[in-house]
Amino acid sequence: MRAVQVPHPKGPFEIVERDIPEPAPGSVRIKVQACGVCHSDSLVKEGIFPGIQYPRVPGHEIVGVIDALGSGVQGWTVGQRVGVGWHGGYCGRCEPCRRGEFFACVLGLVTGITSDGGYAEYMTAPFSALAAFPDELNSADAAPLMCAGVTTYNALRNSGARAGELVAVLGLGGLGHLGVQYAAKMGFRTVAIARGADKEALARKLGAWHYIDSQAQDPAAELLKLGGAKVVLATITNGDAMTAVMGGLGIKGTFMILGAPPSLTVSPFLLIGGSRSIRGWYSGTSIDSQDTLAFSLLSNVKSMNQVFPLEKANEAYELMMSGKARFRAVLTTGK
Amino acid sequence: MRAVQVPHPKGPFEIVERDIPEPAPGSVRIKVQACGVCHSDSLVKEGIFPGIQYPRVPGHEIVGVIDALGSGVQGWTVGQRVGVGWHGGYCGRCEPCRRGEFFACVLGLVTGITSDGGYAEYMTAPFSALAAFPDELNSADAAPLMCAGVTTYNALRNSGARAGELVAVLGLGGLGHLGVQYAAKMGFRTVAIARGADKEALARKLGAWHYIDSQAQDPAAELLKLGGAKVVLATITNGDAMTAVMGGLGIKGTFMILGAPPSLTVSPFLLIGGSRSIRGWYSGTSIDSQDTLAFSLLSNVKSMNQVFPLEKANEAYELMMSGKARFRAVLTTGK
Amino acid sequence: MRAVQVPHPKGPFEIVERDIPEPAPGSVRIKVQACGVCHSDSLVKEGIFPGIQYPRVPGHEIVGVIDALGSGVQGWTVGQRVGVGWHGGYCGRCEPCRRGEFFACVLGLVTGITSDGGYAEYMTAPFSALAAFPDELNSADAAPLMCAGVTTYNALRNSGARAGELVAVLGLGGLGHLGVQYAAKMGFRTVAIARGADKEALARKLGAWHYIDSQAQDPAAELLKLGGAKVVLATITNGDAMTAVMGGLGIKGTFMILGAPPSLTVSPFLLIGGSRSIRGWYSGTSIDSQDTLAFSLLSNVKSMNQVFPLEKANEAYELMMSGKARFRAVLTTGK
Amino acid sequence: MRAVQVPHPKGPFEIVERDIPEPAPGSVRIKVQACGVCHSDSLVKEGIFPGIQYPRVPGHEIVGVIDALGSGVQGWTVGQRVGVGWHGGYCGRCEPCRRGEFFACVLGLVTGITSDGGYAEYMTAPFSALAAFPDELNSADAAPLMCAGVTTYNALRNSGARAGELVAVLGLGGLGHLGVQYAAKMGFRTVAIARGADKEALARKLGAWHYIDSQAQDPAAELLKLGGAKVVLATITNGDAMTAVMGGLGIKGTFMILGAPPSLTVSPFLLIGGSRSIRGWYSGTSIDSQDTLAFSLLSNVKSMNQVFPLEKANEAYELMMSGKARFRAVLTTGK
Repeated sequence: MRAVQVPHPKGPFEIVERDIPEPAPGSVRIKVQACGVCHSDSLVKEGIFPGIQYPRVPGHEIVGVIDALGSGVQGWTVGQRVGVGWHGGYCGRCEPCRRGEFFACVLGLVTGITSDGGYAEYMTAPFSALAAFPDELNSADAAPLMCAGVTTYNALRNSGARAGELVAVLGLGGLGHLGVQYAAKMGFRTVAIARGADKEALARKLGAWHYIDSQAQDPAAELLKLGGAKVVLATITNGDAMTAVMGGLGIKGTFMILGAPPSLTVSPFLLIGGSRSIRGWYSGTSIDSQDTLAFSLLSNVKSMNQVFPLEKANEAYELMMSGKARFRAVLTTGK
Repeated sequence: MRAVQVPHPKGPFEIVERDIPEPAPGSVRIKVQACGVCHSDSLVKEGIFPGIQYPRVPGHEIVGVIDALGSGVQGWTVGQRVGVGWHGGYCGRCEPCRRGEFFACVLGLVTGITSDGGYAEYMTAPFSALAAFPDELNSADAAPLMCAGVTTYNALRNSGARAGELVAVLGLGGLGHLGVQYAAKMGFRTVAIARGADKEALARKLGAWHYIDSQAQDPAAELLKLGGAKVVLATITNGDAMTAVMGGLGIKGTFMILGAPPSLTVSPFLLIGGSRSIRGWYSGTSIDSQDTLAFSLLSNVKSMNQVFPLEKANEAYELMMSGKARFRAVLTTGK
Repeated sequence: MRAVQVPHPKGPFEIVERDIPEPAPGSVRIKVQACGVCHSDSLVKEGIFPGIQYPRVPGHEIVGVIDALGSGVQGWTVGQRVGVGWHGGYCGRCEPCRRGEFFACVLGLVTGITSDGGYAEYMTAPFSALAAFPDELNSADAAPLMCAGVTTYNALRNSGARAGELVAVLGLGGLGHLGVQYAAKMGFRTVAIARGADKEALARKLGAWHYIDSQAQDPAAELLKLGGAKVVLATITNGDAMTAVMGGLGIKGTFMILGAPPSLTVSPFLLIGGSRSIRGWYSGTSIDSQDTLAFSLLSNVKSMNQVFPLEKANEAYELMMSGKARFRAVLTTGK
Repeated sequence: MRAVQVPHPKGPFEIVERDIPEPAPGSVRIKVQACGVCHSDSLVKEGIFPGIQYPRVPGHEIVGVIDALGSGVQGWTVGQRVGVGWHGGYCGRCEPCRRGEFFACVLGLVTGITSDGGYAEYMTAPFSALAAFPDELNSADAAPLMCAGVTTYNALRNSGARAGELVAVLGLGGLGHLGVQYAAKMGFRTVAIARGADKEALARKLGAWHYIDSQAQDPAAELLKLGGAKVVLATITNGDAMTAVMGGLGIKGTFMILGAPPSLTVSPFLLIGGSRSIRGWYSGTSIDSQDTLAFSLLSNVKSMNQVFPLEKANEAYELMMSGKARFRAVLTTGK
């Protein structure tokens, strides 16, 4: 039997006991060591994501040890430590997969949404969802890299910005505090934008070259003073706050959206006049997560976490949703 | 003395006589042969563009002959035929110019807006605004290529779409009827989207592989049936009609905006889920126009025009603004 | 029993009878309808490719009908027509595969080299090697598109050249006569370079805008007169002849090598002075072949073939190797 | 009068007195503070570069103060500190300039080759050759950034490598010791390749993640063990040593050549099999130099110099040519 945290839509998580699952063909069973809590877990918890079959265990920032192999799995071994993120694997057969665009696989597998995730002692995942986990990293420390990490790292490395160019990270929470570190380690002239003067010291410690307090300053105007941003990495979910920063894009600048407000208003004149873009960015696949772990180790980028035992899932979740986490909550299981 | 058409904001154009202008240092005087009428001329005519100093002669789809050289002009000769488009030249000294991004020159020169344009017998232009005009093309035929042509050609060749990929052209007016031709000649699987079944025959004649009647069909759904568009080239200015097509973008698709509605609403989920982009595209500089002329000649792409003498500027302008031009109105001067 | 053509290294092909093969798990059996003869078949025939296990049936420009499915094959049906090219499938599990770089799969599967190919009535292939074949194309006509076609189409669409730019195709044989057509249909200003004035008429008929007779003219100098090539697609295998054309690259031009001489000499000054590149291009995977078939149909690009029954493999092979084929030899099997 | 160092081909430099030059229209006069000594200075000194008009003062790693403005110069002021590199300015009017490819300007201006360079107390340069110099940098310290710096920085930022990918720097001299620093600060997994085990400590201090001693190890094999290089930045001029490393390129890897041996041999099989490239890289224009200075300041990248007064040009030059400089020789003038 294993303990899992089952969300009650509109109510608290409840811990229940279930049979330890058997891995399907092509999947592995993982003994979970740590699982980060992400704002997106509210999609399950609050019943926002369409079509979820309840009860459903959330959690997509998972680090654990392979415990059993389903039939047909090659190249992964029992006892190996792995990470699993939002991307829940891919079929390898559909047209997007044949084009190497696994993120768009028609199966649409999402960890913790279309299958049970990591708020649990055990879970299963397709081998195509697995990232090899480096020995040098600690499971609880690195769990948030499986979503908050890969999302920001992968967006930045594919943003088209070149070393030395002005890159702004909008928001300084779970994603943002990693985004600032990654941007700085990639050699970007990194600007952190957040609410309040009190965050400046941390932003600079994380590697920011400049800090903009969006409560006291017009962030778009400030970015233009610095030459205009080549890339703005928007880690927030407030559409109006996004729109307020778009004017700070420089020529041919790109506004990359990681978080999704219900709707977003853009100025066509702004886009046309400077050949600017608004671009959505999906998190990443398992190999992107593997690259994220490797880069974080190479560059000493670390998530700042508050750690809770699995039993305290409600507490950890509430902390994340309150916006007061510094900066990521992580659940750990057993020993 | 020369005849020019001076707009009366909110009233008709009026023909007046003025002294033939002397070219400033670095500029040339052009004896205008033909000038296309563009929807953007309404920015001057209706007083929409901020800061215009009236009286101001509109017109930025100009073909004519160099009539006199200002001091310091090299590489251009009296008697040479040239084209001038929206881009009114660049300084070569500001930071964008030093980066080769002449379209973003801090001078912000725009033909017919910051200086007098081509609704006239004579005009002047900086040498950096001149495109060499091929002998094989006719001035009145090719004038619309200086704006409607370069805007669509330059957007498409820089769109990132590869030959064979699905490219939709939204709108079948002055820009759209050229966009469909260019897209087809670039080897794209070209879809034309317009209102009404009656335009299908023309669209196919221009090279469209498929036609979507946006009055009878859901254009986004139809594009998805075809696999999803790699690029949508939006030549219209209705924001709601743009938004209605965005859902037809395929994975990593780009929605390129050429025309500017006051505001535009986009779905962040659409962008994030498929790593899609909304991108503004500026028309092009003088060398882009030169490339447009060369490609149009190479590929036999032609603007379909209705030609009027300069004296009938009001008639030509009204036809364009009514949306009934098939597909571009061109003013011609003298013999 | 099925008839296959078995090469005798340094001797003629010999037709032998073998059992009809059973498809392995993940593979399908194909009843071959047509198979193009490629210069690369000499790698098997002459024992050049290292590690080939003889007897080995060559042939990697295959069109046929799926005749039986191995276990675990989904998405393909008996009776469906498919194409198979040089790329012999991929594992989906190795690191290159996880990065979507299937062409570099560690298995290194090559049709007709690591497994039996299409000089036969029946063969088997992994599902990952299959391209869906459009109803509108004829098997014998289109077989060469599975190698000569995809190699040139895929190289050109990924070359970085934009429509209107100068693209030269070096050589006018099996690959070159397709390369010229593809380049023209992609809107490139296409230059064909071949030996002898007699090929000019054909080159122009295939869509070349300009022809250079490399026996009578210095091809590098001629290309420079035209402005310098953005891309040279080298379809020949003579290293000295390649080097002689490199000087015709324009600024930031790319010399793409499809055929492999034993060694190649390049001028570092040429590369550095103009930021030029020499780039090798691998043919393509099964989805690239599928795209090639679709584009060929869209754009009416056709291979010019001389067709032989399978029994005349020796004759077809000798014709190809003599350089006298116009332009591709294709073997067909009964029905 | 000013002192300049005039090379005697095949003999030593000789200091001579000349009139202080007047800046031509569009040029400025610079009071030189520091000038780096580059291997390319031998092109002048030894009479290798074709068409040089002697006597010719070499030197293209210049930092100094604007001393006088020629007519028509805007945006630069007397007393402003500037840098000048190899690129000697551009016309702004030729076709490459109109395309923003200033490095390929038809004038072909090269500092210290087509005009007198920085082995002097005074020199002149076109405004288009000037890089604004940050207050925070010291002239003698930063002079080598004007060639050794911009060449490596600009190549790396345009190499296409993404943060975290394997980038090797071949050679650890004037260019290489900067290349390793830049690569590390851009977040690349940086490998230094040089001759001898004694250089490892320095390489790691400069930021290298791994070191390959090319005397004791096969550098290509070692790179493959690490996964294969995405980019090799070749800062050496020995063609055979370059060829020996090419085999260490990973899939789609690029071998970037900065230094020019007389000829270079490449393996077409290597290029084709992995879609690899050999690419030449020109140094950079004045804005690239400006970016280099800004990035060096941002990331604390520094050239390691041995400083000599202008009078000791022979000594400095010999040191550089001997390969024993650690790592760059810089000439300084007066006070």
